[in-house]
Amino acid sequence: MPKIEPKSGWKAKLHEVIYEADTPSGKFFDVTLLIVIAISIALVMLESVGTLNTKYYWHFYIAEWVITIIFSIEYILRIIAIKKPKNYIFSFYGIVDLLSTLPTYLAFIFGGHNLLFAVRALRLLRVFRILKVTRYIGESNRLLLALRNSRPKIIVFLFAVLIICIIMGTVMHLVEGEKGGFDNIPLSIYWCIVTLTTVGFGDIHPVTPVGRFIASFIMIVGYGIIAVPTGIVTSEITRSEKDKIPKNTQACPHCNETKHLDNAEFCHNCGKPLHEH
Amino acid sequence: MPKIEPKSGWKAKLHEVIYEADTPSGKFFDVTLLIVIAISIALVMLESVGTLNTKYYWHFYIAEWVITIIFSIEYILRIIAIKKPKNYIFSFYGIVDLLSTLPTYLAFIFGGHNLLFAVRALRLLRVFRILKVTRYIGESNRLLLALRNSRPKIIVFLFAVLIICIIMGTVMHLVEGEKGGFDNIPLSIYWCIVTLTTVGFGDIHPVTPVGRFIASFIMIVGYGIIAVPTGIVTSEITRSEKDKIPKNTQACPHCNETKHLDNAEFCHNCGKPLHEH
Amino acid sequence: MPKIEPKSGWKAKLHEVIYEADTPSGKFFDVTLLIVIAISIALVMLESVGTLNTKYYWHFYIAEWVITIIFSIEYILRIIAIKKPKNYIFSFYGIVDLLSTLPTYLAFIFGGHNLLFAVRALRLLRVFRILKVTRYIGESNRLLLALRNSRPKIIVFLFAVLIICIIMGTVMHLVEGEKGGFDNIPLSIYWCIVTLTTVGFGDIHPVTPVGRFIASFIMIVGYGIIAVPTGIVTSEITRSEKDKIPKNTQACPHCNETKHLDNAEFCHNCGKPLHEH
Amino acid sequence: MPKIEPKSGWKAKLHEVIYEADTPSGKFFDVTLLIVIAISIALVMLESVGTLNTKYYWHFYIAEWVITIIFSIEYILRIIAIKKPKNYIFSFYGIVDLLSTLPTYLAFIFGGHNLLFAVRALRLLRVFRILKVTRYIGESNRLLLALRNSRPKIIVFLFAVLIICIIMGTVMHLVEGEKGGFDNIPLSIYWCIVTLTTVGFGDIHPVTPVGRFIASFIMIVGYGIIAVPTGIVTSEITRSEKDKIPKNTQACPHCNETKHLDNAEFCHNCGKPLHEH
Repeated sequence: MPKIEPKSGWKAKLHEVIYEADTPSGKFFDVTLLIVIAISIALVMLESVGTLNTKYYWHFYIAEWVITIIFSIEYILRIIAIKKPKNYIFSFYGIVDLLSTLPTYLAFIFGGHNLLFAVRALRLLRVFRILKVTRYIGESNRLLLALRNSRPKIIVFLFAVLIICIIMGTVMHLVEGEKGGFDNIPLSIYWCIVTLTTVGFGDIHPVTPVGRFIASFIMIVGYGIIAVPTGIVTSEITRSEKDKIPKNTQACPHCNETKHLDNAEFCHNCGKPLHEH
Repeated sequence: MPKIEPKSGWKAKLHEVIYEADTPSGKFFDVTLLIVIAISIALVMLESVGTLNTKYYWHFYIAEWVITIIFSIEYILRIIAIKKPKNYIFSFYGIVDLLSTLPTYLAFIFGGHNLLFAVRALRLLRVFRILKVTRYIGESNRLLLALRNSRPKIIVFLFAVLIICIIMGTVMHLVEGEKGGFDNIPLSIYWCIVTLTTVGFGDIHPVTPVGRFIASFIMIVGYGIIAVPTGIVTSEITRSEKDKIPKNTQACPHCNETKHLDNAEFCHNCGKPLHEH
Repeated sequence: MPKIEPKSGWKAKLHEVIYEADTPSGKFFDVTLLIVIAISIALVMLESVGTLNTKYYWHFYIAEWVITIIFSIEYILRIIAIKKPKNYIFSFYGIVDLLSTLPTYLAFIFGGHNLLFAVRALRLLRVFRILKVTRYIGESNRLLLALRNSRPKIIVFLFAVLIICIIMGTVMHLVEGEKGGFDNIPLSIYWCIVTLTTVGFGDIHPVTPVGRFIASFIMIVGYGIIAVPTGIVTSEITRSEKDKIPKNTQACPHCNETKHLDNAEFCHNCGKPLHEH
Repeated sequence: MPKIEPKSGWKAKLHEVIYEADTPSGKFFDVTLLIVIAISIALVMLESVGTLNTKYYWHFYIAEWVITIIFSIEYILRIIAIKKPKNYIFSFYGIVDLLSTLPTYLAFIFGGHNLLFAVRALRLLRVFRILKVTRYIGESNRLLLALRNSRPKIIVFLFAVLIICIIMGTVMHLVEGEKGGFDNIPLSIYWCIVTLTTVGFGDIHPVTPVGRFIASFIMIVGYGIIAVPTGIVTSEITRSEKDKIPKNTQACPHCNETKHLDNAEFCHNCGKPLHEH
């Protein structure tokens, strides 16, 4: 069978190391990559700190090139190792991998290291690569599922919150005017969102008695409705938690009755043995 | 039957388009209206921003007239299309539709565009019209039901919060006085609501050691009782979630007894078989 | 029977009106009292506002005397109407009623209206009288029960929060020192409580990178553990909600088996009828 | 049996008092220790307040020595009372006990009371000793268990929050720049954590319209996902609550099968009666 033969070649070996995580070398590859990604993210962050950047300019410069070359090699290896490179190149992770490596090269070609910081910040996209490794964590799937199931309800809820914010924001703008900083309706809506979500920065806050009364009302309403998304998600997680308990799916061979206890020997419906011997 | 005949006339067709959403033209009408409402709300918001208003005064003026005319036509069509116009005119949405269209005409009659902004803000009432379309979203009904069921408990809870705020607000006013901004009892109660709901603007905050100690106490209590509305709503949603599971609705053919177990073969009331063979 | 005879006298009638709420006159008495209490509380609050107090000094003065006399009459009537006055006088409400009426008289005897505001604020104790009328609301009992049942867990939790705050507060004091306002350990602990409960006034906030890093850690921990009291109370309410479903308490007269379905006619254990005819 | 003999000696008596809490003297020892620990913690806190420290320097000095000597005696007694002193010395509590007593002696040997405050703050480690006494509170174990069970899910969740914060922090840094105080990416991430956890200090806050729009988005997302850890812990506590209900623990005398229904008369495994008569 010629089809299996290439699997034993170096390409197959490479595929196993890069794309799979069952073998020791595959795990080692994943962990190494995670560390390099973490270093690379830390670098971009620290580089944005003005004092550090002027002091350790060259350290950052060299470190960035080392990391870019490592990621470039990884990118090329990923294309080589896969049978249909298109599947990888145009996948979400393929695009992230490319976009996060490009800026360093672009900066080298067009005017040294002075490329717009916004473009260089693209390197932070590497953070998404960490998600690739979340396949280890089975819990994340169940959490995502619970979130996805409660999505329609949460959208309805957030929509209601938005309408409350638009109306209360307008009212606050009319009542407070420019005294407390409620200069215009969008700003008042922003304040309303800040308040209803109980964040409360305090940069804008009511100063008139009527404004404070309405604000108190908004806060108490916010206190009452913060319970809603929690209730939705909790109910969803509790349900998914129950589904985890393995359900018995066997059917009685005599009366076709289902939902037996896991250790039942006899059908609870017709009394005949569940397992033929 | 003459009663059915008018339904096939143009009025019936109009009714179908405006008031119903089953047909393609009905859906198209609803979606178009939603977009116009969204634009109209955005306009009122942006108009309140001083710099934008002076710069694009005429753009806003014309756009507002276009939208007002669209809504006026819609309002008249709604009255024509319905058999008993009173049902619409004096309904909640009828009043909202009228109030949100009037200001532009009033501004035109009494002194140009300089009408009090508060009156013009009435146009924002159109936001409620969005709710009309929520009939699409089945989830919203179940959420509202859960909220309505937990209303008595939430009112009791908010009432308790208010009493805590009145008492702690007075205590803080006595302890802090005018040093930290606790100038009078209503202001202290406002601060107490801001704190208990964990919003925490920071415009007013205790500065004396005793005041800070009491504030810490209030915050920890708030932390403890924020759980209560959440618990109430969660319990309600979990319950409504369970009710969703289809219940056995068969009735015994002999004694008419209902609520049998899903796998019951015999009536638990009269002992006769539930299914005739 | 001479014991029943006094009940038909005017004292018994008075007792019915004041202490009971079943008769129309009893309900009327309660509602009137509630309104007077609300007015009285509003008065104390508004009196604390400096500008209002200087402007409407005499209005406040007269209104306060009217209300005090009403409450004094009520206090005397309550003592007369009850058989054992001690039961009322030394009860929680009896003391509250007395303490909230006294200040006005004290102010009259010792130096006019200039009595210490703190003493006059005692009048706000009347707010507790509102609780007397909560007997109408059945929900409040179930809520209180759920809270009382989860009290041991919530105390353990708040105790853990306090220990976290003491330790993290000390760490923040050592790291930030007096730069960000963390002048001493009690102040740092206060800040830690403000942060962990997600109130976040902003009067004190970290300014050093290390302090901000630790603060981030504290906030994320707070985010994670805010779930605990909610979980406790929700679980308690959900359970009490279930207990609401009336349980069947009848026992089979033949085999003494309990926990039958509410509408069961025959014992599910021995098959004999549950009700003897 | 010589092994039992030493138990009746004074060492055994000491062990009973110090390490056990069943006897009155053991309880008295625990309570006394708790009070001394509380006083000691209060002392360290108050000492950090500059004004108090200069005023009551000698009171603090003497009180600290008294407490240190009490703890030193307790430490030595604990070593004597236990059979294998190593078990105590190298246990978590043994190290805490030593570390929290040492600073006073170190300060005495190396330069009086002027030792680095950070070292003296080690005395606050005594707070952990309070945990030793939590064995009284059975609830704490069940709470800890619920937290431990939900740990994997909470870690996944916090990890997701961190990634959101890194990305949104970078975006805010690019959008707001140094206008609103978003000077660099780590600072922006710090702000993002402050916002997402709904703490909202207000020391850093967006000032540009676009920045405020993105901030609104972050806050609403935070509002939506704050529900997740709550849902996780609630689901866990509810489940542990259910496990509390005493389960039927009888085993079939014929086939040793367990987990029978509470009212089962016959084994569901072998069909023979569960109770011999």
